[in-house]
Amino acid sequence: MINPAGIVFDAYGTLLDVTSTATICEARFPGFGSALSDLWRRRQLEYSWLRSLMGRHVDFSRVTADALDFALAALELKPSEDDRTALLRSYLTLAPFPEVPAALAQLSAFRRLVLSNGSEAMLEPALTYAGVRDQLQAVLSVERVGVFKPAPQVYALAVVHLGCAPHEALFVSSNGWDIAGAAAFGLHTCWLNRSGAPLEQLGVQPEMVVADLAELVGMLVTDDA
Amino acid sequence: MINPAGIVFDAYGTLLDVTSTATICEARFPGFGSALSDLWRRRQLEYSWLRSLMGRHVDFSRVTADALDFALAALELKPSEDDRTALLRSYLTLAPFPEVPAALAQLSAFRRLVLSNGSEAMLEPALTYAGVRDQLQAVLSVERVGVFKPAPQVYALAVVHLGCAPHEALFVSSNGWDIAGAAAFGLHTCWLNRSGAPLEQLGVQPEMVVADLAELVGMLVTDDA
Repeated sequence: MINPAGIVFDAYGTLLDVTSTATICEARFPGFGSALSDLWRRRQLEYSWLRSLMGRHVDFSRVTADALDFALAALELKPSEDDRTALLRSYLTLAPFPEVPAALAQLSAFRRLVLSNGSEAMLEPALTYAGVRDQLQAVLSVERVGVFKPAPQVYALAVVHLGCAPHEALFVSSNGWDIAGAAAFGLHTCWLNRSGAPLEQLGVQPEMVVADLAELVGMLVTDDA
Repeated sequence: MINPAGIVFDAYGTLLDVTSTATICEARFPGFGSALSDLWRRRQLEYSWLRSLMGRHVDFSRVTADALDFALAALELKPSEDDRTALLRSYLTLAPFPEVPAALAQLSAFRRLVLSNGSEAMLEPALTYAGVRDQLQAVLSVERVGVFKPAPQVYALAVVHLGCAPHEALFVSSNGWDIAGAAAFGLHTCWLNRSGAPLEQLGVQPEMVVADLAELVGMLVTDDA
């Protein structure tokens, strides 16, 4: 897999650091920053899977707000309307992981896309704020198919856009379950395992595992040079 | 909703106490009982949702084993083959919640079914061990449709069996997301909220909320008497 027709990146947790919400969670609810941020993120993912299975899709900003409301209630935190607005707005100002901007630039020989659960209204400002929007030729949202990852039709959006077969594209995500969905669809996969997490046991394996995007650049760009 | 055509019970967490696996988790891995049991259960559910969305169904015993393997690895525990077998077998000897056997007997004026993610090979011995199999007129497994809850076709199994419309059956579960799936399908719902958990934010509400099955008996049987 030296020369993919395109490199397709997940956004949240892969390019953009969702744990950076812990800072504002901590500022608003001292002592609860990590617990609130972690539970919020986990329920956000779970609600995206559950609503997809139920056939009750809503966009990711709604899922994100619903998950926040659950997490606040579970931790018995009482937000003001200002707290709630500030927490939700933090998804528009997520920090990129440190190596991401330079790594995307170094991959300029390839078409680079984002394929994300986020709506365009969430993704465009967030990727612009993170300083990486200009490095991407397209930002594809699941809103085009009305179901969340890891449903196969989401991954199909990438190959439709690239005009290639699944085995000609490379999908990169830090979410093990997202890698499993992409591999099940037939994409080449690179799991960005930043935290040394164990493999998700979903019956499919990532082809490549790297610790950060710089390592992927080393694999793709050195081989090409 | 005084006289349902049938009462449809979830099994795991509703009739059978999955947290009773914590005892054997603790016996095998001292100090890790709750952490292992909790992570195992959460991944078990998540894998059922993810595999359903990926179109990669396997039965619940496989999902349960895969989730256990992830949880053990995440906690850096090294099981022997005997540990692993003992932990998986604990799903066949779950304790019923204390009020469940008597409550099911008191509901004998109604047709009582189980509708569960478990395979029949898991459910039949577990419900027999718990002493409640004789109180149930049918045990319906998602294996008949090859997808897990909360996909609508699972809940359809219950109304097919009962030969009634969705709004004529009552679904009872302690899992808030399962209640949301049943409500989205059109069943009457009773959320058995044993732990005082906050409502899951999935866009649908339970019609009834009770703290245990005895409370439901009081509502259904007293009204009928």
